[in-house]
Amino acid sequence: MKHFHAESQFASEPWNATVEAVAKRLADTAIERDRAGGTAKAERDVIRESGLLTLSTPVELGGLGADWTSVLDVVRRFAEVDSSLAHLFGFHHLLLATTRLFGRESQWAPWYEHSARHRWFWGNALNPLDRGARATPDPDAEGGFLFSGTKRFCSGASDSDMLVASAFTHDDRLLIGVVPTTRAGISIRDDWDNMGQRQTDSGTVDFNAVRFDADALLTDPGPLSTPFACLRPLLAQLILSNIYLGLGNGALREARAFVQTNQRPWIASTAATPQQDPYVLTHFGDFWLGLESARLLTSRAAALFDDAWRHGASLTEAQRGETAIAVAAAKVASTRAGLDVAHRMFEVTGARATTAALRLDRYWRNLRVHTLHDPVDYKVRELGDWALNDGLPRPSFYS
Amino acid sequence: MKHFHAESQFASEPWNATVEAVAKRLADTAIERDRAGGTAKAERDVIRESGLLTLSTPVELGGLGADWTSVLDVVRRFAEVDSSLAHLFGFHHLLLATTRLFGRESQWAPWYEHSARHRWFWGNALNPLDRGARATPDPDAEGGFLFSGTKRFCSGASDSDMLVASAFTHDDRLLIGVVPTTRAGISIRDDWDNMGQRQTDSGTVDFNAVRFDADALLTDPGPLSTPFACLRPLLAQLILSNIYLGLGNGALREARAFVQTNQRPWIASTAATPQQDPYVLTHFGDFWLGLESARLLTSRAAALFDDAWRHGASLTEAQRGETAIAVAAAKVASTRAGLDVAHRMFEVTGARATTAALRLDRYWRNLRVHTLHDPVDYKVRELGDWALNDGLPRPSFYS
Amino acid sequence: MKHFHAESQFASEPWNATVEAVAKRLADTAIERDRAGGTAKAERDVIRESGLLTLSTPVELGGLGADWTSVLDVVRRFAEVDSSLAHLFGFHHLLLATTRLFGRESQWAPWYEHSARHRWFWGNALNPLDRGARATPDPDAEGGFLFSGTKRFCSGASDSDMLVASAFTHDDRLLIGVVPTTRAGISIRDDWDNMGQRQTDSGTVDFNAVRFDADALLTDPGPLSTPFACLRPLLAQLILSNIYLGLGNGALREARAFVQTNQRPWIASTAATPQQDPYVLTHFGDFWLGLESARLLTSRAAALFDDAWRHGASLTEAQRGETAIAVAAAKVASTRAGLDVAHRMFEVTGARATTAALRLDRYWRNLRVHTLHDPVDYKVRELGDWALNDGLPRPSFYS
Amino acid sequence: MKHFHAESQFASEPWNATVEAVAKRLADTAIERDRAGGTAKAERDVIRESGLLTLSTPVELGGLGADWTSVLDVVRRFAEVDSSLAHLFGFHHLLLATTRLFGRESQWAPWYEHSARHRWFWGNALNPLDRGARATPDPDAEGGFLFSGTKRFCSGASDSDMLVASAFTHDDRLLIGVVPTTRAGISIRDDWDNMGQRQTDSGTVDFNAVRFDADALLTDPGPLSTPFACLRPLLAQLILSNIYLGLGNGALREARAFVQTNQRPWIASTAATPQQDPYVLTHFGDFWLGLESARLLTSRAAALFDDAWRHGASLTEAQRGETAIAVAAAKVASTRAGLDVAHRMFEVTGARATTAALRLDRYWRNLRVHTLHDPVDYKVRELGDWALNDGLPRPSFYS
Repeated sequence: MKHFHAESQFASEPWNATVEAVAKRLADTAIERDRAGGTAKAERDVIRESGLLTLSTPVELGGLGADWTSVLDVVRRFAEVDSSLAHLFGFHHLLLATTRLFGRESQWAPWYEHSARHRWFWGNALNPLDRGARATPDPDAEGGFLFSGTKRFCSGASDSDMLVASAFTHDDRLLIGVVPTTRAGISIRDDWDNMGQRQTDSGTVDFNAVRFDADALLTDPGPLSTPFACLRPLLAQLILSNIYLGLGNGALREARAFVQTNQRPWIASTAATPQQDPYVLTHFGDFWLGLESARLLTSRAAALFDDAWRHGASLTEAQRGETAIAVAAAKVASTRAGLDVAHRMFEVTGARATTAALRLDRYWRNLRVHTLHDPVDYKVRELGDWALNDGLPRPSFYS
Repeated sequence: MKHFHAESQFASEPWNATVEAVAKRLADTAIERDRAGGTAKAERDVIRESGLLTLSTPVELGGLGADWTSVLDVVRRFAEVDSSLAHLFGFHHLLLATTRLFGRESQWAPWYEHSARHRWFWGNALNPLDRGARATPDPDAEGGFLFSGTKRFCSGASDSDMLVASAFTHDDRLLIGVVPTTRAGISIRDDWDNMGQRQTDSGTVDFNAVRFDADALLTDPGPLSTPFACLRPLLAQLILSNIYLGLGNGALREARAFVQTNQRPWIASTAATPQQDPYVLTHFGDFWLGLESARLLTSRAAALFDDAWRHGASLTEAQRGETAIAVAAAKVASTRAGLDVAHRMFEVTGARATTAALRLDRYWRNLRVHTLHDPVDYKVRELGDWALNDGLPRPSFYS
Repeated sequence: MKHFHAESQFASEPWNATVEAVAKRLADTAIERDRAGGTAKAERDVIRESGLLTLSTPVELGGLGADWTSVLDVVRRFAEVDSSLAHLFGFHHLLLATTRLFGRESQWAPWYEHSARHRWFWGNALNPLDRGARATPDPDAEGGFLFSGTKRFCSGASDSDMLVASAFTHDDRLLIGVVPTTRAGISIRDDWDNMGQRQTDSGTVDFNAVRFDADALLTDPGPLSTPFACLRPLLAQLILSNIYLGLGNGALREARAFVQTNQRPWIASTAATPQQDPYVLTHFGDFWLGLESARLLTSRAAALFDDAWRHGASLTEAQRGETAIAVAAAKVASTRAGLDVAHRMFEVTGARATTAALRLDRYWRNLRVHTLHDPVDYKVRELGDWALNDGLPRPSFYS
Repeated sequence: MKHFHAESQFASEPWNATVEAVAKRLADTAIERDRAGGTAKAERDVIRESGLLTLSTPVELGGLGADWTSVLDVVRRFAEVDSSLAHLFGFHHLLLATTRLFGRESQWAPWYEHSARHRWFWGNALNPLDRGARATPDPDAEGGFLFSGTKRFCSGASDSDMLVASAFTHDDRLLIGVVPTTRAGISIRDDWDNMGQRQTDSGTVDFNAVRFDADALLTDPGPLSTPFACLRPLLAQLILSNIYLGLGNGALREARAFVQTNQRPWIASTAATPQQDPYVLTHFGDFWLGLESARLLTSRAAALFDDAWRHGASLTEAQRGETAIAVAAAKVASTRAGLDVAHRMFEVTGARATTAALRLDRYWRNLRVHTLHDPVDYKVRELGDWALNDGLPRPSFYS
């Protein structure tokens, strides 16, 4: 549907054809893979081979050098057909960016470069609310630590090449480190079985005295230490917003295609065709308006984020804060609009669309699960504090 | 939760213990059976053996002689734990009632009696919007017809003892007949695989010159022929309403139980416990109020329906119409309240509740599918016609 | 519209004709009086003369002996045409009841009796959140106090015969007393000018060493001292709920009458008449369903309240608490339903209905003002605490 | 509040100081004038003297040469403090634009020029749904017509210098003409008395054989005759959208200022201050997000409109249609967001804010009245036709 991307820069980006080709591959098997769950090994390799894992990597480090607006457009596009893979793709870029935001250039530049060269897929073992892993000084390495314990919700750890992991020291300091997934002591359980986002592999990773050298720890400037470092949660939230929006777009597209095949209006309808039924049209109008509003808010937030990113170390708390408000607005609007379409799309399709063969409920299941990442109620509260008190969100891993 | 049934007559009904025992049996395996789909043979037999299939059968014909309010209470209770079996149970009683509403006493009295004696489970092959079956005069039987063709959405046909089926004559007259499921020419496909209501067996039934004698056809007074006959769609709608309400109750109960196990409030919450979080409480308040409103509307509709039923042939169009308005109100309110809880319950539970092990999405899937029986938009329209124009719903199989 | 009172007991009550006659008198001048504001002296006298001020007074004390359900029905009926006078009427009965709930029979029995005999209209100077008045011991009267200071929001004090007033002692004890309005030291300002509820005279009353003898103070059992005394806020909330519901009914009736005069559907409508426009019908359906739900919840709450009232001193905290939940549900539902109709009724009438001649905005203004009595958000929270934690509302002047 | 205009171009426009000065003048007396109604002669003259009536007039014709985005920003700014004058101001520009869209350059260029030179204020007598005026050929002037009859809803006709009026010929052709308000046969009634928009003077104008020469008739290309001419309704709708948004902004600003003065949270609140009450914050978050969404949609629609305008005669139906969709989206979103704030702002302020002295209800009254210009339900339907069927709105005076 052309109007879903009326203003997307897609058409003019050099990687557009690649993105569309990958999206098509993901779409072809999305229904079956939603049923099966598990690791989407073949599709992860398609993404690896596409070169799109380097999208956010600067050209001088071997990447495609896209800005965040473009990266997020691709996340959204993938989410229209496969929100699990879209999540893994988006968080790969987030994890790379994490090294840049929390670490020294002498750390992240080589990681970016090797990732581009070897098509590494990064996975997540960071969840900072999960206190399951402890870090103890490594007796064999100056400044190094050993991570032990269990981390949950480790999306994309399976089949990853690199991991970003966190643990707490004995004095409750959060340490974040980077490690090859093959490092001794890491074992990844294949235990993710969820009602939605079924191929994000968001299962458990066990750490048994896993070695993190001083160079592998992101302590300079460290997590959430500067306004620039505090862009990390905003990027995470923007990825989520684009996934929600993509899921909403995908649901609307399916609803539209299905309704176009309907033959008869409801027996009590005065319309000549189901496509002109007044209530069907109202639902579609509401769906579209919700998504269009969320799209504009999300695009604006991405533009502000790109601008903040370009400021680097000179970014002020105020600019970071105002970007955070734009991001929060995008998050709330995309949550609501996406969920609304996925929940109510069946009211326009009718009962035939509920056959298991179509698995159209996956839009709802995926949105429902993913929108619980952090409570939307508290995002609205942040907007309220801004509107009433000029309050800027206090930086955390969720704000 | 006591307050869900504050005013239910359950406690005092003689069959209450039986109902609770059956509900417990259904609950024990509901998660696994939602996963498996297919025919719930064992649970259908539990219901058979419970004697509750005779609930709506007059005492003098061997039944328990309950009024409709009581039957619907049981439907609702079952739906709290298993909405597929609740549907089959409710429609069994609807199909028996259909013989009474559309047929002669000399027809329905024996059917009621034999059903009670042999614990027959009735199944549905009636769907009047489905024009897949034709009726042609039976050359071998005066007044008899042969039904041929295919009927869809035949809930409860599998493992049934008796079927109510419909077909159109060459001059487009709707014939409804009663037939033992074992009658030659009937074959039931095991082809129901849907995103929700996965054990209603609402699949396809093929009729190949199936014999319906004159005595098996409900032509006197016939379908929707008198105000009393026009109670049939109202009973169907009331069964649906009670299923939606039961699903909503079940979802609320699960959400409540889950939240009570939560340990920590969200990091940005000012509440000491998750159970005192202001937004969690607001959601629960909204959920409960929606269900409580729907409960009162549904109870009132059931009481009016019982009263209309007792009028029998003397029922007027006006009384039938005002009952229809009460039923429509119950239908809309229970649709909305049930869907709202099932959709938003995860906002109080948080992400942990989305594990596939709990299959908590089944409340949403079951409600989503079942509430598409007929469009709620047109029920609201009926209420509007009443409120603005004093218009009574025109009788149809859905109004 | 008959269906607004389908089940009201009105028709059979002996005072019904009187109620209808008073309602008609109120309706005749409601528009003009909404414009003028000020004290509705003539209409207050109509109510006095009607005898309905004795509605809640036991027969043996000279009253009509109605139960609360009936009193609240009358409040609702009056609110359909004049919510200011409905408020004054309802609170008159609340203030009488306050003497019974907080005082000794030797106090309230004579007040009831004299009120009935002399057609006293009681007014309010109690607002317990307003700390503007102090009570100091009266040096001239054992156990008596002098009240000094200023009370705001004193609805119905103007033109009243008796006042219930409150003040705080030096050790912060709330004293509530009864006093003839003519008592020396009382002066009532004519300073109520509000966007809605314009004839409730909810202005300021000054107390200058006003004498309250020991016999005039409600200290036995005293405010909110027993479960029975704690029925006082529930009665207040029920009066509010019935006013909101009455306003909603009145707004719907006006919308209906107006739309019935509309000649042409909107140019883009496919309906033959405005009365069959699909969106107009949807709005009416929603309006009606909201009011019908609120009506059932409110009726149920009134029935539970009557039952609790009949328990008197034997009322338990648990029964009082469950009644409070029913009342809170009625309050929230009537707030929402009333506001919704008053806010959106113009979407069915169209622009012509906004002429100042009709003053149809008064339904919204009256509801908007009156629903702020206490925040509905916190009523929803009470319902949530009940649904999640089995928590009963902690008694206060608002719960 | 800075964040309301975070991205407005205001600051950099040369007329910004003038706009702010006029806005301040309007704000100073807005409450009193809302009470009084009638013609705002002094404020109209302030606008005349400000030079802002030439805002949309090209520089070469003596105007300020602003684009439509800028003109609409000023409409919105005025509406924040006085939506009646904002309407008159916006429609003045619309009426000038009408001559350009429907007429020949030899007609509109002089009108623009004289308007700029003499500070003419244009008024409206066009309402095309009102069939109250007939046009008959003028026997004394070749191609001229005489208009006779009565037109309603003639906003801004009082105290205007020029009028745009319409009438139907005997063969039902809509004629639109331009005429000095002083022309013989025109009489303007001072009969506008409405619940909102009280100073738009939207009353009745009588035409008694009023002469319109051939040169005064906009017949080339004529009303809605070309895609460019069909921009007229879009400009009208954009003006409305900006008024709704301005009213919403104004309401939010007042709510914010009021709540900042509140001293105590509600007794049941766990927050330390009213400004940190969780429900107050949620309301503010919702208000702000609604307005921010509408702002982005409205800005985008204005930008598309400016682009379409620049295309002039080369504008295609497709581009006009897609602009119409953007405008419809802005209209629906600003209607909803504005109404929502104006309706619910009292839930954050509490009852004290309802004093008539503040007249805070005027935001709701103004929005309620103005949003009935044409039914929002049918705008949603247009969006639905686009989303489902790729349908473009059929041009009319409302689409």
